[in-house]
Formats: sequence, C-alpha cells, structure tokens
Amino acid sequence: MPEDRTEQPHIVTCTAPVNIAVIKYWGKRNEDLILPINSSLSVTLHQDQLKTTTTVATSRSFQEDRIWLNGKEEDITHPRLQSCLREIRRLARKRRNDGDSGVDSASLSHKVHICSVNNFPTAAGLASSAAGFACLVYSLARVFGVEGELSGIARQGSGSACRSMYGGFVQWIMGNKEDGKDSLAQQVEPETHWPELRILVLVASAERKPVGSTSGMQTSVKTSCLLKHRAESVVPGRMVEMTEAIRKKDFAAFAELTMKDSNQFHATCLDTYPPIFYLNHVSQQIISLVHRYNKHYGETRVAYTFDAGPNAVIFTLQQHVPEFVHMVQYFFPPETNGADFIKGLPVNCASLSEELKQGIGLEPMPKGINYIISTKAGPGPRAVEDPTQHLLLSDGFPKKTM
Amino acid sequence: MPEDRTEQPHIVTCTAPVNIAVIKYWGKRNEDLILPINSSLSVTLHQDQLKTTTTVATSRSFQEDRIWLNGKEEDITHPRLQSCLREIRRLARKRRNDGDSGVDSASLSHKVHICSVNNFPTAAGLASSAAGFACLVYSLARVFGVEGELSGIARQGSGSACRSMYGGFVQWIMGNKEDGKDSLAQQVEPETHWPELRILVLVASAERKPVGSTSGMQTSVKTSCLLKHRAESVVPGRMVEMTEAIRKKDFAAFAELTMKDSNQFHATCLDTYPPIFYLNHVSQQIISLVHRYNKHYGETRVAYTFDAGPNAVIFTLQQHVPEFVHMVQYFFPPETNGADFIKGLPVNCASLSEELKQGIGLEPMPKGINYIISTKAGPGPRAVEDPTQHLLLSDGFPKKTM
Repeated sequence: MPEDRTEQPHIVTCTAPVNIAVIKYWGKRNEDLILPINSSLSVTLHQDQLKTTTTVATSRSFQEDRIWLNGKEEDITHPRLQSCLREIRRLARKRRNDGDSGVDSASLSHKVHICSVNNFPTAAGLASSAAGFACLVYSLARVFGVEGELSGIARQGSGSACRSMYGGFVQWIMGNKEDGKDSLAQQVEPETHWPELRILVLVASAERKPVGSTSGMQTSVKTSCLLKHRAESVVPGRMVEMTEAIRKKDFAAFAELTMKDSNQFHATCLDTYPPIFYLNHVSQQIISLVHRYNKHYGETRVAYTFDAGPNAVIFTLQQHVPEFVHMVQYFFPPETNGADFIKGLPVNCASLSEELKQGIGLEPMPKGINYIISTKAGPGPRAVEDPTQHLLLSDGFPKKTM
Repeated sequence: MPEDRTEQPHIVTCTAPVNIAVIKYWGKRNEDLILPINSSLSVTLHQDQLKTTTTVATSRSFQEDRIWLNGKEEDITHPRLQSCLREIRRLARKRRNDGDSGVDSASLSHKVHICSVNNFPTAAGLASSAAGFACLVYSLARVFGVEGELSGIARQGSGSACRSMYGGFVQWIMGNKEDGKDSLAQQVEPETHWPELRILVLVASAERKPVGSTSGMQTSVKTSCLLKHRAESVVPGRMVEMTEAIRKKDFAAFAELTMKDSNQFHATCLDTYPPIFYLNHVSQQIISLVHRYNKHYGETRVAYTFDAGPNAVIFTLQQHVPEFVHMVQYFFPPETNGADFIKGLPVNCASLSEELKQGIGLEPMPKGINYIISTKAGPGPRAVEDPTQHLLLSDGFPKKTM
C-alpha cells in the first residue's frame, strides 16, 4: 500500500430509522448511563419515508474529531456524542486486544469526521435523536470494524436510539445492573411479521417549542408520584401484553394498549410539577376523531400515540388507510388541498359517506395538520454500499450541496 | 288555630354556597349511596358572590311533591332528589318517634313544593349541584324541623354537596362503613380563619359541553389504574398536608398542593379510557401564566385549580389580587374592556410593569376568559328570615318574576 494512500480517508455511510414507542419510555434512573425507570417497546418506521443518513470518515490527516449535522458544523464535545465515540473506540480496542481481525487497527488512533442528514425536515418536529444516534453508532462501528451488540452504546447517545438499532418491533429491556450492561434493545418481531400494519405520521403545526424530553423527564421523575407507580406497577404487565398482541397480530389489543399507554405517559406529564403539556387542541381533536371513528364502526380500527411533541402517529391496517386518511383530510382541511398533503406510501382514493361524517360529529379544524407521512414498519440500520452516496468528500469535508 | 289557616303552606327559604375542592373527589366506591374512593377537602365560596336560594313549602293542600329549578319545573322523581326527600323524611320521623318536640309532625305527611335559583348564570359552567343539593337538604331539614348532622344526606344528592353544608375549609371524610354512615363532611377551619385568602373564579368561554362528572368518574374508576393508586396511596397523605397548610395559613404549601392535586386529578382523567379532557388551551394558558407569575417573583403567590369543566379557580392573598387580576385582563383581553370583566368583591386598580409583562412572555389570548368573579371563603347554609325573599307564593307556586 503506497504511503500516500493512507492519507485517503476510510469512509463509511449508513442509514438508520426513526422509531415510535407504543409502550413509552419516560424517566431515567441514571442520567449519565441513560438507564430508564421502565422497559419500553417500539415500532421501527420504514426508512423509505424517514431516515437519518450518516457518513463517518477516519484519516490520519484529520486534526480533530468534527461533526456536521444537517449541513451545519456542531460541537463535537457534546457529552452524549463523546460517550458514543468513547464507547465505540473502547470496544474496538477491546476486540483488537482480543485478537479480532476485523478491527481496523490503524484507524483506531485516527480522528473522525462525521456528517449526518435527515430525509425529513427538522421543523416536522419528529424526534430525530433516536435515528441520529443509532446511525452514528452503527456507522462508527462499521468504520472501526466493530460488530455485535451496539444498542447499549446507542442508548448512551439517546435512550430511545437503542430501539432504532433493530427493525420491526423492538423492546428496550430496562435491565437492573448498576453499570447498565443489561439495559439493551432486543427485536421482538421482524418488520416482515405484520405486513398489513400501516403507520401514518400526522405532522401537526406546532405553535411553540415544547419542553425538551431530557429536562421534562427529569422533572417528572422528581415530582410525579404517578410516574413512579406507572414505571414500577403498570409497565411490566403492559410489556407482556404488548409483546403478546404483536406476536398474535391482534390489532384491537395492540391498538388499545398503544392508546392507553400514550395517554398514561401524557397523564404523568400533567402530574409533573410544574405540569408539562405535549397534547394541544389539535392532539385532543385527533384523539376524539380516533375514538369516534372506532365507535362508529364498533371496532378498534385505528390507534394514536403521541410522543413529547405535537405530532400524532396513527396505527391502522392497510384496508382502513384510504378512508381514515381522507377523514383526517376532511376534519383537518389543509391550506392547499393538493396531493402534497399525503407523503410517503401511496394512498388510494376513498369517499367519505355522509353517515360517517355526521357520525363523527366534530367541527373541522382548518390547518391543524400540515401533512401526513404514510409509512409502515421497516428494517434497522443499513450500510450504503454506493460510494456516491457518501456525505463526505475524499478530503473528509461535507459535499457543498448540503 | 282556625281551620282555614292549615291550608296556608309552611314556607322556609335558605341559601347555600358553592365549594371548590383543593383535594379533589373523583370516583365512587358506591354509586347509590355516593361513597367516594378518597377523602377530599374544599373551600366554601362566599354567598355574596355565588349561592343557591331554595324555598321549600309544605301544605296539606299540595297534591304531590314538585320542584322548579331556575324557573322551570323539573322531574321530582330524579333518584337523587328522591334520596334526599326520603332521607329527610325518615330522619324527621325518627326524631319525632324519639320525642323531639322540634319536628313538625303535621307536615310530615304533607307534600312539598321546592323552588330553587342560582345567583349566577348556569351558562357560567360553575358546578351548581353542590350548592343546589346542600340548599335543598338544609331547607327540607328546616321545614320539617330536623336539626344536626345533614351532610350525609346532602352527599346522597351530590357527593360534593356534603362539603357545601359547612363554611370555611371543609373535609369530606370518605369513611369505610358499607352503609356510608361515616362518610361525612366536617369543618376544618371556619371562614374567619384566613381572612387574607382571596378566590378568583375565571369564567372561561367553553367551546363544547364536557363529559359530565357522574359518567366521567365511573369510566375513570373502571379504566384508570393511576386513579386507584392516587385514591389509595396519594390522597391520604395530601389530606394531612393540606389540613396542616390551612391550619398554619401557609400559603405556599396550600397553593402548591392545590395545584398538584388539580393536575393529578386531570392526569387521572387523561389516564381514563377513552381519555377525558377538561383542560383546554385556555386552561393550559392560565396554568402557564400562574407558574410564570410565581417564577417571576420567586415565590408562590397564586394557585390554580380546575374541576370537571373549563373554569379556573385562583387562590391568592389579598395584596396580590389587583396585579394578578390586571395581568389576567392583559393576557386574556376581553371583548369589551369594561368594568363588567370583574364581578364580585371590588378590585383596586393596578398597573403592570413592562418587566412583568415581558417576564411572563406569553402571547395574549383574546376572549379566552369571559369574566372574573372576585370572592373569598364564606359561611355555610343560612335561613333567610325575610319572608319577601321566598321564591314560592302563599299558594305554593313560584313567583311570576322568575
């Protein structure tokens, strides 16, 4: 290998998915290690619609670790970024010392350049930190030649990121060790398990930035006695029920538990002092709409879940997507009634019966929802083999187009 | 006594107050006897601002029991009305049989005419059933010459009505007997105990009728695991703390516990399936306003509490009333900026500093609040001695002016 070629950076690009929890994570028992007060369970969303792409480059010529997020250089000294970098390098050293031939020994002493982008607007208010840290950890592992269990490292970047390390239906087992070694994600079922399941992200127009989840959950842990009860006495049973509902593909059971758990999470936010509100009047209207829709048909066809932000995530089965989407469009008339309202997987046309509209009996709320992303369960992180997709040029700096 | 005079009805008029719970009642363990799943504690509001007036007449000439509420005849066979009538008559008979000379033996076999009005618009959405049933029971007891403990009977009309049987600060002890004999209200401190305490009712403009409290609490008891935990493990301690805060006139402790308990009650509503929302975007804005106001001054000067409706009830001390009221007026600009916005106890003028307005940092929300009723803690039910105040004429029928 000629001397000058070692100056060429070693470049890896990967993608990772967003996940949405159906049994919610809220509250840490250890802030540094990011250990949760309860287990949680999520569905990994398909990367065709929502993903983070991250390129990591190492080179002996790099002077320092650097990171660019969505086109802007950010502070690499952020403690959670540092945790992930430190843990991956530690794991690589450990494996090299254990004689793992896959580890790239040379690059271990090299600095990294990291560049990451989302294929969805940050303004959409979709929690991007899970996909972001999952992608970072997956890419770093690739570049340093580390394989195996990585969710424990992703967890130290952002708790819910550990669940984005797997596709399909994923649980984050809280664990009980002090050092967090047993607080890991695990796939419950792969993304192919329940092909009829569909997911709609209703991107709401937020009026103001809500309380961030890190500080929000700290305040909840300190002040909400209902949260403590939820974590210790409610969630363990729900994890079992939810796993069972997914295994059986029992939509009604899955849907009802998803809604109840979303509501209980927001209840603990309200029990926090001072109280935290993530559900606004649009969210309340969506909740009403879903319950009235299910009641109209006398069966649970649709479920909602809300995270620490204003967007609703809807679960339903394939055959109900067209009608439900058009009902959302009817009750939340968008500014321009164009095809732009529905993004992602194609949605067939559907007409709404007068009986249904009247049965719902809600006043339409114009402009409450900006657009809908139609998606489904999808796979975990992937390496991108096509080198033209790298976000860093061979000089180790971001492409100008970003 | 000439024969014809016995045809003249025996008429009694009484008034009773509204109360607002600071430790909330939500959920019954017995629907028929109205026995709660937890104790609660309230402040009785002054009748100069908010009261129910009820006239009860008995006469041998009346053919049947009849009732007029706010000028409209209502169905007397309503089970809860029947409970109160039955229990008062049973008590009167018991006392007569025990040889109590005060009991009006003749009237015991007579039918009653009842007429009741509120001095506040029903549209204000103030829970009027507590004052209404307290007044009914108090008036019936008077007309039948029954004295002593009556809160157990008022409770069977409307749970929270038992607390309106006393002035000042009142607890409703849940009791544990199956027959409910020990589920009674008790004065904690009289209305004279804390003269500096002021109460502001912020009458909100409701968009829609919320879920009624009777069916709401039934659903909560059935579906919310957080409610069960609250009732069994949280409220008992809070009853002790709240009583202590009131005894000591410790405003900060009283205020914080009041806010926490209001929030926890609404949290259990959200944990109900399907969820119940009583807090709308105006309520959320009031909650933000109060917390920001307290934070601005670095002390807890103001507290909010919300029942099963959109109105906020604010507790503060006399010296903070003018500034807080004008701040509410600034952040919820009324349609006409007239004196009509503030009803009840006079509120002095106050100017808001730019520093305060900016410190609060909220966007004004026009027309969110219809008006404010300024009041304080007040006495329990009272007999009205002036016969010109009777709502029933000597023929036993309502005055035409109603």
